[in-house]
Amino acid sequence: MDQPLRVGVAGLGTVGASVVRILSRRENALGRAGRGVRLVAVSSRTRNRDRGIDIERCAWFDDPVALARSSELDCFVELIGGSDGVAKAAVEAALESGKHVVTANKALLAAHGLDLARLAEKNGVALAFEASAAGGIPIVKTLREALAGNEITRVSGILNGTCNYILSRMEHEGLSFEDCLADAQRLGYAEADPTFDVGGFDTAHKLSILASLAFGTEIDADAIYVEGISSITPLDLKMADDLGFRIKLLGVAERNKSGIEQRVHPTMVPKDSAIAQVMGVTNAVTIDADAVGEITLVGPGAGGDATASAVVADIADVARGRFGAPFGLPIARLEKMKRAPMQRHEGGYYVRLSVLDRPGAAAAIATRLAQADISLESIVQRRAEGPVHDDPEQRSLRAVPVVLTTYATSETAIRAALDKVSADGHITEPPQLIRIERE
Amino acid sequence: MDQPLRVGVAGLGTVGASVVRILSRRENALGRAGRGVRLVAVSSRTRNRDRGIDIERCAWFDDPVALARSSELDCFVELIGGSDGVAKAAVEAALESGKHVVTANKALLAAHGLDLARLAEKNGVALAFEASAAGGIPIVKTLREALAGNEITRVSGILNGTCNYILSRMEHEGLSFEDCLADAQRLGYAEADPTFDVGGFDTAHKLSILASLAFGTEIDADAIYVEGISSITPLDLKMADDLGFRIKLLGVAERNKSGIEQRVHPTMVPKDSAIAQVMGVTNAVTIDADAVGEITLVGPGAGGDATASAVVADIADVARGRFGAPFGLPIARLEKMKRAPMQRHEGGYYVRLSVLDRPGAAAAIATRLAQADISLESIVQRRAEGPVHDDPEQRSLRAVPVVLTTYATSETAIRAALDKVSADGHITEPPQLIRIERE
Repeated sequence: MDQPLRVGVAGLGTVGASVVRILSRRENALGRAGRGVRLVAVSSRTRNRDRGIDIERCAWFDDPVALARSSELDCFVELIGGSDGVAKAAVEAALESGKHVVTANKALLAAHGLDLARLAEKNGVALAFEASAAGGIPIVKTLREALAGNEITRVSGILNGTCNYILSRMEHEGLSFEDCLADAQRLGYAEADPTFDVGGFDTAHKLSILASLAFGTEIDADAIYVEGISSITPLDLKMADDLGFRIKLLGVAERNKSGIEQRVHPTMVPKDSAIAQVMGVTNAVTIDADAVGEITLVGPGAGGDATASAVVADIADVARGRFGAPFGLPIARLEKMKRAPMQRHEGGYYVRLSVLDRPGAAAAIATRLAQADISLESIVQRRAEGPVHDDPEQRSLRAVPVVLTTYATSETAIRAALDKVSADGHITEPPQLIRIERE
Repeated sequence: MDQPLRVGVAGLGTVGASVVRILSRRENALGRAGRGVRLVAVSSRTRNRDRGIDIERCAWFDDPVALARSSELDCFVELIGGSDGVAKAAVEAALESGKHVVTANKALLAAHGLDLARLAEKNGVALAFEASAAGGIPIVKTLREALAGNEITRVSGILNGTCNYILSRMEHEGLSFEDCLADAQRLGYAEADPTFDVGGFDTAHKLSILASLAFGTEIDADAIYVEGISSITPLDLKMADDLGFRIKLLGVAERNKSGIEQRVHPTMVPKDSAIAQVMGVTNAVTIDADAVGEITLVGPGAGGDATASAVVADIADVARGRFGAPFGLPIARLEKMKRAPMQRHEGGYYVRLSVLDRPGAAAAIATRLAQADISLESIVQRRAEGPVHDDPEQRSLRAVPVVLTTYATSETAIRAALDKVSADGHITEPPQLIRIERE
């Protein structure tokens, strides 16, 4: 029997501590299944903190880069986080010194995934990152291994639990974005600085990894169009409900005629779709591919144990020698991502306007859209709140919400038409625009 | 670069023809990802049939066993079907002659999986069977590889598209089982002899494979309690709807205090659960495990291309040397399945009785259940169809449906109580009993 795989873990936060616990609990089971796994060393910022884990038998390193270089290891597990700095230095050191690397660091991969994969390839070692996207859901393995018979046309999903939690609560309780965010922070579902989550950037990092795996392309996070959820109002969720939709923050990567479109934005999805059923901090990823059709994976996208489950699966794969090119193809065979610009995006749109309550305003707006060849699927004008005014003068001073949904049109066309509507002076606020995905 | 993996396919039905098409279409892509794959030989019952595939370059074998033994192959793909006979002989011949085997044959695995895995282990070759359970859903890979850090407590799901199609249509259109089955047969979703599907046996074969992978036990299909869907009536579906449930044919394998319970039966699931959203021929599998919590995989459970997608993924894994023990553990380390008998099953029950419309009948039934310590959650008595009779004599001659749901009780207790209810002479037909799963 081979010697056990000697593992070092850098970063003992929630995920790191859980990895240590699972490796201890599953030591026998991992050994029974093949080559064993032994935790031999750890590194973290503070040494004397009660994490509820037993690291007495392990060597301690103050410096994760020194841990990464240690000759006592076969496999370096990076759970430090951050796209640069010590996480990057440590992963590079591990790969350069011929060690396998397992990481959950999506920011690092989004920024430097290609270079790190090249380094892994050069040194003949694994660079495994199941935990970097959608937490405990085995989406990396599915894209890289289980769909070898398929050309993948689209990968999309709910990749950020914080945003889904906030949107779910806003929908169920009619609360504002700000109130739900504050609650999410109180419950530990959102960071003190929530921009990374609610601004869509975390989803974008994960999407860049999935897109590279799905399409066999060089990772290109900069090409992603990103919109967050902070502009979504209770009225949008109410209107979505009336129209048969829910609003989810989706990451979508799809191959279309102009290249590969990668985008993150709030999205109207049909209420009876599988993705619409995903509530709270749960994640879900749907893959469309030519042979298998559509498959959807649903599960916990974050949390110490769920993320650690993915980290340990990667470690077990490394122990059994079950690894290959990090992004599924040798570096030389990854294609350059041909970016499909967002302006060329085509789809349906939900548009909410604050329209001055004047005769002809709605007609003028509809005319502007018609001039741009945009077909309306529905138009709803809500009565203004407050007293009913019989006097047109008084009515004309206040705005009423008008909601339109369109059939498929282009991002350029809808933007240009709405610019004209703004210039016409009928609306009092910038338009709210939410893309519709009917699939 | 290694020589391509030389593949022979036995069985050119819908799945076999699709495998041939995909291998041809993906030849370059598979080569780019690592070792290439080349189809070198095929075998089928009839040679001269237009299958819309190009097998001109392949050797033809009339005898699949001869194909399995051929020294021109590295990997034998068995798509013949059937638990014994030529499929078994061919797979054994392939393994004995040192060839990797990829199969979609759940009946073969359910009956002989352990012996075949032993043969594969002895010869150091792969026995891969992703396509044998839940078609295009990568559930075998997920259980065997992606959850190495977990102790799995439960695996359950909708594993037969025919049954789910029939139940979905019965629910939506209020049709009888017989009418929906006839439609399913007309549309090619059900076989001429539907027993295997609607009797639950196909689900049981698949469940036996998933249970072995989930729990690290020797496959034991004989231990599965099996009930099909033919007794489900439109009234049951209507009552389920009123009570907040849908009815699905579930396969469930779970570890409980008496051992491992494996069962297949129609099941009431909460309408808002993920599994309840799965309609038509789609399959879904949910895994409960200690670290990851719950993950669900949804996708096509059958169909030529979806099943072929799983077959080709297995072939690609074999080509890349990415295989190990067929059931995740070496044969010597698979535990014997400790069967938890169905009589010990505990859960909620839906009971529908045809009760003679006499004073005291409902009270007598409730008393029998109370005597057995069974707590009722709800009781609904429907008015009999037809004219209202003021005469108690006339009423007492006809039966009215009474539906009860219970809190958790044991299979033994509910069966014994219903036997007494039958003996009391209040009911005119055997009770309809459907288990409730609230998770």
